[in-house]
Amino acid sequence: MGEHKYAIGVDFGTESGRAVLVDVATGEEVATAVHLYADGVIDEALPGTDIQLPPDFALQNPADYIEVLRVTIPAMLKEGKVDPGDVIGVGTDFTACTMMPIDGRGTPLCMKPGWRDNPYAWVKIWKHHAAQPEANRLNEIAEERGEEWLSRYGGKISSEWLFPKIWETLNKAPEVYEAADRYIEGADWIVLQLTGQERRNSCTAGYKAIWHKQEGYPGDDFFAALDPRLRNVVDKKLSRDIYPLGQRAGGLTQEMAEMTGLRPGTAVPIGNVDAHVSVPAATVVEPGRLVAIMGTSICHMVLGTEEKVVEGMCGVVEDGIIPGYFGFEAGQSCVGDHFAWFVDNCVPAEYHEEAKAQRLDVHQLLEQKAAQQKPGEHGLVALDWWNGNRSILVDVDLTGLLVGATLASKPEDIYRALIEATAYGTRVIIEAFEKNGVAVNEIVACGGLPERNKLLMQIYADVTGREIRVAATAQAGAFGSAMFAAVAAGKEAGGHDSILEAAKQMARLKDVVYRPNPAHNAVYDQLYTEYLKLHDYFGRGQNDVMKRLKALRQQVLAGD
Amino acid sequence: MGEHKYAIGVDFGTESGRAVLVDVATGEEVATAVHLYADGVIDEALPGTDIQLPPDFALQNPADYIEVLRVTIPAMLKEGKVDPGDVIGVGTDFTACTMMPIDGRGTPLCMKPGWRDNPYAWVKIWKHHAAQPEANRLNEIAEERGEEWLSRYGGKISSEWLFPKIWETLNKAPEVYEAADRYIEGADWIVLQLTGQERRNSCTAGYKAIWHKQEGYPGDDFFAALDPRLRNVVDKKLSRDIYPLGQRAGGLTQEMAEMTGLRPGTAVPIGNVDAHVSVPAATVVEPGRLVAIMGTSICHMVLGTEEKVVEGMCGVVEDGIIPGYFGFEAGQSCVGDHFAWFVDNCVPAEYHEEAKAQRLDVHQLLEQKAAQQKPGEHGLVALDWWNGNRSILVDVDLTGLLVGATLASKPEDIYRALIEATAYGTRVIIEAFEKNGVAVNEIVACGGLPERNKLLMQIYADVTGREIRVAATAQAGAFGSAMFAAVAAGKEAGGHDSILEAAKQMARLKDVVYRPNPAHNAVYDQLYTEYLKLHDYFGRGQNDVMKRLKALRQQVLAGD
Repeated sequence: MGEHKYAIGVDFGTESGRAVLVDVATGEEVATAVHLYADGVIDEALPGTDIQLPPDFALQNPADYIEVLRVTIPAMLKEGKVDPGDVIGVGTDFTACTMMPIDGRGTPLCMKPGWRDNPYAWVKIWKHHAAQPEANRLNEIAEERGEEWLSRYGGKISSEWLFPKIWETLNKAPEVYEAADRYIEGADWIVLQLTGQERRNSCTAGYKAIWHKQEGYPGDDFFAALDPRLRNVVDKKLSRDIYPLGQRAGGLTQEMAEMTGLRPGTAVPIGNVDAHVSVPAATVVEPGRLVAIMGTSICHMVLGTEEKVVEGMCGVVEDGIIPGYFGFEAGQSCVGDHFAWFVDNCVPAEYHEEAKAQRLDVHQLLEQKAAQQKPGEHGLVALDWWNGNRSILVDVDLTGLLVGATLASKPEDIYRALIEATAYGTRVIIEAFEKNGVAVNEIVACGGLPERNKLLMQIYADVTGREIRVAATAQAGAFGSAMFAAVAAGKEAGGHDSILEAAKQMARLKDVVYRPNPAHNAVYDQLYTEYLKLHDYFGRGQNDVMKRLKALRQQVLAGD
Repeated sequence: MGEHKYAIGVDFGTESGRAVLVDVATGEEVATAVHLYADGVIDEALPGTDIQLPPDFALQNPADYIEVLRVTIPAMLKEGKVDPGDVIGVGTDFTACTMMPIDGRGTPLCMKPGWRDNPYAWVKIWKHHAAQPEANRLNEIAEERGEEWLSRYGGKISSEWLFPKIWETLNKAPEVYEAADRYIEGADWIVLQLTGQERRNSCTAGYKAIWHKQEGYPGDDFFAALDPRLRNVVDKKLSRDIYPLGQRAGGLTQEMAEMTGLRPGTAVPIGNVDAHVSVPAATVVEPGRLVAIMGTSICHMVLGTEEKVVEGMCGVVEDGIIPGYFGFEAGQSCVGDHFAWFVDNCVPAEYHEEAKAQRLDVHQLLEQKAAQQKPGEHGLVALDWWNGNRSILVDVDLTGLLVGATLASKPEDIYRALIEATAYGTRVIIEAFEKNGVAVNEIVACGGLPERNKLLMQIYADVTGREIRVAATAQAGAFGSAMFAAVAAGKEAGGHDSILEAAKQMARLKDVVYRPNPAHNAVYDQLYTEYLKLHDYFGRGQNDVMKRLKALRQQVLAGD
């Protein structure tokens, strides 16, 4: 055994699992590994069959999760030349709500003979959208009944969350609902596999399953109002035992130790969610600094000392991000996806040629051209609602808008306007937090976008008027899981006593700081005023043209 | 000499002159010819010099006009094997307001030694936009004084028209204004060259120079209010002798006969404007049928028996299109230009490849893809203001808007939405005419677009709820000039007694009729309602975001 102690973090994503092996004293990333899921996202037919899935389905195969552990951990031990005895903990995080029905022994129904051919027996992942009718009905009933918990979720429960997904199965495949001993999040299932212990985490329970530390779940009569068969769904199909983040869930089982090459009993923390676990990885363990996880979409995470109602937030959960704090989450549905759409659909051939000649990708070329402009120069403002609006309007039926185009407008003008629109969207969220007493003094970014687009980062600083720093790790999810693993192991084993201590020792920021340029900020204040006026006009019912166009489109397509 | 009699029409356009030789009895186009102007549009430096032009300048060289006559007429006589003795008339039409300073003998100042190096001595063509400050001031003063003629021009005199252009010269180059014996439209100058007679036409005087058949020009005190030096501008620099369309201006001079190969004395009609002369060429010589000249922009022409004030029209002029009627003109600033902008800036590389593989141009490919959709299917609405709005809002500072975009929006969706937006714009104009008692029962189209885009024509029929027919001639301007030439020659010479008679004998429609599809029309009624709501919100002062963005852009650029 060596002087150095290590922790492993494994991040279970949408297409793959990503793992990192970290020195717990220094935060140095000694080794990393990625393993693609063999079955990927299952959205057409069940693996190895021609059983077609209904529209809006998105499933995974839980066997792929086990495979990630079996492949990545030994590979990292080898690459890092680390003695398994020096690995003091292995932590995990997951997409959420990613849920599955299991039997009494924790085996997913889809892995059992007799159930493999039933789509509802598989893992429904976060972006499974087939439970929208159930979500709509749930929201109607909750509003009619004046359920107070609704305000903790910005007034709407998403179809991506737990109860709509369970209800969908009850409606469409009651035999699966009946056969399920219980439902469990992937985040908790993987911990059950590693430790043999079911230790449901406060993060997914709070953000995805309407659980509250003091009040627990909604009452049984609420579930009965949805469907009499759901009256006892919590007691029959879930559990009221919820564990705060930062605790030890258990030790690695003999079987898992053999499979991974780690020692039996290696500490495993309570499970966590990819976005939430990134917060301490971005050095944030206190109120006042907002973590923006910037990729295809943006998750905004900030801590507070009191429970507040913030318009359009995704949720507020005590111990939901960092134990001892209220964790607030908000989100934008369309950020990286927005620029990808633009590059795929709106960039002329000559730009592709120019990019090729300069050995840039098209995003880089557009960034380079757009960076030559001053704020306000292109004369455009957009509403960044190409994929609806999550925070703060919570309305999937809103759509995109661009105003100000002329015959002189160039692709880089529109590209820059789309970046700015997403920055205005982030500012709306920040102002909603601050208006309701949740301070946001500074931003720390992580995820793919900050690595790739400096212009975007500068625009966010200029628009929000706040300094932006960037997490040092490129794998904030897996890194945060390794931090929680070091905490689960504890100081005596060479780890840390708390996630605050782990953040101090392990988490780092890059040297770069994006500072708001006061002159740019002044112009963006004017443009933001225009954005807000359009935001309220089109988003708050003064002109519901976006919804009417969507409804007309549905009607026309249905007439086919 | 043969049995058949012929007339020649010559259309002086922006980049070239186009000529046609027509059988006056049948309307058969016996020969056509095009001649590009050697100096084209002069907007960078004066020809053969390095004298740079100020911004927004657009000039032409009058020598190029003469060259068109010298080249095209003999070429057509040869191609058509026509005896010059059988050519009974030669008519002309011009872009307008395209104006120049001339000396006492009709020679343009720019053709005289000592003046060639002065940009203000050259021909300012219609799209010369450097007189915007003068136009703005003129409109302010006219409004302050309550000048009643302003309502005949939709409430605004354009910077493209005669008096702003003259005033600009007075302000910037008073020596040119002083040296000019008078100012003349290209339409009248070419007739002066052909016949030796100055016969100013009622069309350019009415539409571009604020002249009225009963009231004449604005009073001298109005011009004095602009600038004391302009008090006698009409008497000193123009003329009050205005001739109605359809009359004979004179006979071809000996010199011109020698140059063109035609007989001296060949009848030449009063000059005309390209758009207006197209109306009888499209068979329209009576109220109720609107002629849409559809190219980079659209001119809308319709006849009436009474003078009416129509919101946002470009002008109403007695005898301005067809003698005996009031000619109403309206316009859209951005139609073909809109689609060209889209194809140049917004169509991805793969579409270019697909078009190439199918041997289509990109417009055709987009049309083909867009034609597979039903109205309302793409979920988009646009405001077609990429180049401002002429009718009915008369506001150059309005800009484009697109609403309804999602991550599923494709280029053909946006392309179709832009076509539809221009059709909604045409419907707004038609409804403004009808609301004010000017009937529009049917549409006749001419120009380049109807030849090229069947989907567009069908959408216009579906959106407006009106049948659309298409002029048979592809050269409506030149063809209309040949018709007026046949009228100037008169029945005794083998021509026609009136333009009505000429239209009956010579003008033809194509067989195709675009008929509104009632189901499509019903969907477009809904979409048009959305368009109108946005039109009024952004165009009538409820939210002047477009103007503020333009102003901010100017301010930012000026700060460079």
